[in-house]
Amino acid sequence: MTKSNPGNFFEDFHVGMEIHHATPLTLTTGDISLYRALTGSRHALFSGETFAAANGFEALPIDPLLAFHVVFGKTVPDISLNAVANLGYAEGRFPVPVYPGDTLTAISEVIGVKQNSNGKTGVVYVRTRGFNQRGEEALSYVRWVMVNKRDPSSPAPETVIPDLPKVVDPAGLKHARAYADWNTTLSGSPHLFDAYEIDEKINHVDGMTVEEAEHQIATRLYQNTAKVHFDAHAQKDSRFGKRLIYGGVVISIARALSFNGLANAAELLAINGGTHTGPLFAGDTIYAWSEVLDKAELSDTVGALRLRLVAVKDQDPGAFALRGEDGKYAPGVCLDFDYWAAVPR
Amino acid sequence: MTKSNPGNFFEDFHVGMEIHHATPLTLTTGDISLYRALTGSRHALFSGETFAAANGFEALPIDPLLAFHVVFGKTVPDISLNAVANLGYAEGRFPVPVYPGDTLTAISEVIGVKQNSNGKTGVVYVRTRGFNQRGEEALSYVRWVMVNKRDPSSPAPETVIPDLPKVVDPAGLKHARAYADWNTTLSGSPHLFDAYEIDEKINHVDGMTVEEAEHQIATRLYQNTAKVHFDAHAQKDSRFGKRLIYGGVVISIARALSFNGLANAAELLAINGGTHTGPLFAGDTIYAWSEVLDKAELSDTVGALRLRLVAVKDQDPGAFALRGEDGKYAPGVCLDFDYWAAVPR
Amino acid sequence: MTKSNPGNFFEDFHVGMEIHHATPLTLTTGDISLYRALTGSRHALFSGETFAAANGFEALPIDPLLAFHVVFGKTVPDISLNAVANLGYAEGRFPVPVYPGDTLTAISEVIGVKQNSNGKTGVVYVRTRGFNQRGEEALSYVRWVMVNKRDPSSPAPETVIPDLPKVVDPAGLKHARAYADWNTTLSGSPHLFDAYEIDEKINHVDGMTVEEAEHQIATRLYQNTAKVHFDAHAQKDSRFGKRLIYGGVVISIARALSFNGLANAAELLAINGGTHTGPLFAGDTIYAWSEVLDKAELSDTVGALRLRLVAVKDQDPGAFALRGEDGKYAPGVCLDFDYWAAVPR
Repeated sequence: MTKSNPGNFFEDFHVGMEIHHATPLTLTTGDISLYRALTGSRHALFSGETFAAANGFEALPIDPLLAFHVVFGKTVPDISLNAVANLGYAEGRFPVPVYPGDTLTAISEVIGVKQNSNGKTGVVYVRTRGFNQRGEEALSYVRWVMVNKRDPSSPAPETVIPDLPKVVDPAGLKHARAYADWNTTLSGSPHLFDAYEIDEKINHVDGMTVEEAEHQIATRLYQNTAKVHFDAHAQKDSRFGKRLIYGGVVISIARALSFNGLANAAELLAINGGTHTGPLFAGDTIYAWSEVLDKAELSDTVGALRLRLVAVKDQDPGAFALRGEDGKYAPGVCLDFDYWAAVPR
Repeated sequence: MTKSNPGNFFEDFHVGMEIHHATPLTLTTGDISLYRALTGSRHALFSGETFAAANGFEALPIDPLLAFHVVFGKTVPDISLNAVANLGYAEGRFPVPVYPGDTLTAISEVIGVKQNSNGKTGVVYVRTRGFNQRGEEALSYVRWVMVNKRDPSSPAPETVIPDLPKVVDPAGLKHARAYADWNTTLSGSPHLFDAYEIDEKINHVDGMTVEEAEHQIATRLYQNTAKVHFDAHAQKDSRFGKRLIYGGVVISIARALSFNGLANAAELLAINGGTHTGPLFAGDTIYAWSEVLDKAELSDTVGALRLRLVAVKDQDPGAFALRGEDGKYAPGVCLDFDYWAAVPR
Repeated sequence: MTKSNPGNFFEDFHVGMEIHHATPLTLTTGDISLYRALTGSRHALFSGETFAAANGFEALPIDPLLAFHVVFGKTVPDISLNAVANLGYAEGRFPVPVYPGDTLTAISEVIGVKQNSNGKTGVVYVRTRGFNQRGEEALSYVRWVMVNKRDPSSPAPETVIPDLPKVVDPAGLKHARAYADWNTTLSGSPHLFDAYEIDEKINHVDGMTVEEAEHQIATRLYQNTAKVHFDAHAQKDSRFGKRLIYGGVVISIARALSFNGLANAAELLAINGGTHTGPLFAGDTIYAWSEVLDKAELSDTVGALRLRLVAVKDQDPGAFALRGEDGKYAPGVCLDFDYWAAVPR
C-alpha cells in the first residue's frame, strides 16, 4: 500500500466530519519580511512595530492574509488534493492577532456536500479554524471546493448546503484595534473613514508582474503543496499547459496594490466572500481596483469599510472591469474579493 | 477626486520644504537573511553575530546599504513617483548602526531646485534623513532627481543648487568601530589597510546574473514602489520595452561582489557620490571592479579607504572599463559609486 | 599581486593540512522561513516550535540540511573554487542541533589526495567540521572533489585515500531526540518505524520545477559562491552553456518532496553517502523516490531508517529509475543520496 498521501475524494467527506490538519507552523519575523518582499505589502500597521504598538497591538503583527494563507495551506493535503476548483469563500473572521513566535494549527469541519449532476465530482463545504499555541481561535473561514469522486458509480450523498451569510455582520467586528495614535503621514494617506462613500470606486493604478519564482516561493512559504502551482512538467499536459498561480498570491498582491488609495484600510477584519474568477500565470501583470460596498461605524474612533477588491490582468484598472453584459466576469478579471477593513475615523 | 497618490511634480517642490514620509518599517533578522540571499553579501561583520560583537557592535547589525535602500524606498512616493531619472547621490552618512528590531522612518528636506531648459522637467535636490525609533539619525544622504512638471507652462522657480562636497571629510568618519578582535581568517582576506595603495585597481572577478524575480523581491523588500521595476505590461511601451532594475540592487550586488578583493572593507562609512551610468535588465550579468581613490587614518587601529566601485555588465571587469575617449561612460558601465569604507590596520 | 581569491589548486593540498574557513554566519528564523519558502520543507519538527519542544528540542531547530549547506558554502572559496566536480560525501554527522541565533564557523582537514592519470587534475578528500559559537561540533562530513592542478607538470603527491565507512554505524546515532509526544496527525502521516520494510520503495509523487531565481537565492542564502551557479555570461561558453544548479538545492528539494511518504522521518541523523549523478538546470522538474536500505532500533521509542533518496528529473518517480543495465545511472537521475533518519516507533 502506498505511503504517500492519496488525498480525500468526494466520497470521503461527510457532513460533521472533523479533520485535524498536519504541520504546526511557527510564524516569525522571517515570514513578515518574506511576505513583504513577495507581495509589496506596505500598510504601516504591519510594517512598523512602533506604529502597531501605538495603535493597539502587542508587537508587530502578522498580516491576517499571511495567517490565512498558512492555515489554508494546511488544509490542502486533506481537502483539495483532488480538487478541480476552489469555488468560493465566506465568513472569514480574524478574532485574535497572530504575532511572530505564534504557532498555527488548523482543524476543518465538513459543513456541506453536494454531488454534481455529472456524477464525477461534487462540492464540499468546510469551515476551517486556525488556532495559536494557546488554543485560541486566531481565524476561521468557510470555503467550498469541487472535488473529484474516486468512483463515479458510487452513490450520491444527501445534499447539504450550509446557510452562509453573504456578509459578516459588522457587529462581529468589534475586535478592531482602537487606533489611539493613527498618524496619517506615517500611514501614507489623509483619507479616513468619513472620506469614503458607498459605491465609490478606487483605481489603485500600480501594476505588478508575477514571475514563476515569486509565486512558487510564496506558495511554499505557506506550505501549500497543490501540484498545479509547482510542477511544470505535469502541467504541460493540463488544460492551460503551464503552472497556475495560487489564488492567495493574487489576493495578497491585489491587497498590497490597494494601499495606493486605501492606505488607512490596513486591518482586514473579515472576509465576506471571494471568487477566483480567472486564472493567473507567470508573466501576467496584476492591477487592482476597489469599490466601497458598505460602511459601518464600529466605535467613536474606528469604522469598517466593506470593500470589493477586484484584480484584473494586463489592463487598465481605471476601466473598473467586472462583469460583461452577459453577467459573466469580464475577460482578464481574476479576483472578486469582498471584505471588511477597519479604518480610523 | 482620486484617492491614489499622484506624487509630487516639479512645481510642488520648494527649497526649505520638509516632507515626512510614510510607512515606518521594522527591520529584522528576516531582512538580514533576505538581503544576503538576494545580494550574495558575505562580509563577516554583517554575517556573524560573534564577529560583530567582538568588533564593537551590540548585535548583528543591518548592512548600511540595506538601511539605505529602505530609507530611499520611503521617499519614492513623495519624491520620485514622477521622476524621469535618478541623477546622483552625495554626502551619505551612517552615524548610528541599525539593528534587528529597529524601526526606521524618514524625512526629506528640499535643498535645491533647477528647471531644465526644455521647460518640461526640473531637477530637485533633497537631503533625506532616516531615524530609528529613538529619534536618532541613523543615516542621511542627498540625492537629486529629474522630475516632470505638471504643467510645462508654469513659471520656473529661482534656481538653487546646493553646495555639496565631492567627498565626505574623513574627519566625519569617527563612528567606525574599533575592531578590537579582527580575525583575517574569519573575515576572508589577509589584506588590511596598509596593503592598499591609492590608484590601485581591484578586479572582483565574479559575476552575478540578475533575474526578474530577484530584483523585484529585493525592491519590494525595501518597499520601493517605483513602477518601472514591477510593471512589465506598462513597460512594454517604454523606452526600453521592459522592466528596469532598481539601481540599489546594482549597488548592493556590486558591493557584495567586491568582497572578493576587499573582504576587510566591510563597514561602509559614507557615500561620497554615485551615478547609475547605464540601465540594467533581467538576464544581464553584473561584474565589479574597484579603485582606491584615497586613504585616511581614522585611529591607531582603523583606516578608511575611499573606493570607487564600478559595476559593468556582460564583460570582463579586469578590463577596468569606466569612460571612453570621449569622456563618456563606456558601454556596459552601469554604476560609478564612490564611498568610504573602514578597514582595520 | 591580485587581492582577489585565486582559490587553492591540487598542488596546494597536503594530507593533514587544516583550513579555517571565512565568514562566521548567524542563522536565524529568517533563514528558517527562506529555507521553507525555497525548498517546500514541511516536516513538523522543523516547522512548529510547539511540536519541536514537545519532542526534545529546546526551540525550533534549524533543518540539518540548511546547516549542512551553510557549512559547505564556507568551504567553497578554499576547497572547490578550482574544482571540476564534486564527487561524493561520506560520514555526515549532526551531533548537536543548530538553533536560531547560533553562529556557525567551519574548519576542514585534508585527509586524502590522489592525482588523476591525466596529470591535469586530482582528487582531494576533506573532512569538514562546523562549530557553533560555543565551540561545539554541530556537524561534520567528508567530501571529495576533483580539483585542477595549477601546473600540469608539477609532481604527483603520494596517493592517500582515506578509509571511509560506506555507512555511519547506527551506534553513533544516539543523539536522536526521544520524541516524547509525537502526534502523527500533526506530523502528517500514520506510518511509523515498524511500518517500513527493508527494500521497500516509496514514490514521493510530487514534482517541483526549479527557476533560476530560486536556486540562486538559495545558494546565496548558504553563502556558496561557486561561479557556475550564478554567472550566465561566463556559462554561455561552458560545457552545458548555462548555469548549473547547486547540488545542495537538489538534495533539499528531494528531501522536502519525500515528506509525502516519509513525513515521520523528519530528523536527518547522518549522511552515509551521496552522489550528484546528473546536472540540473533551471526549468527542470525534480521528482523523488526513496528506498529503505536498512533499519536500526535506537531506543524503545525511536528507530532509524537508512534511506536512499533518489532525485529524477522530468519523469515519473514511480518508475524508480536508478541505474541502467550497464550499471551506470539512468538518464534523468540527478541524485543518489544515502542517509539515516530518525523515526518514532
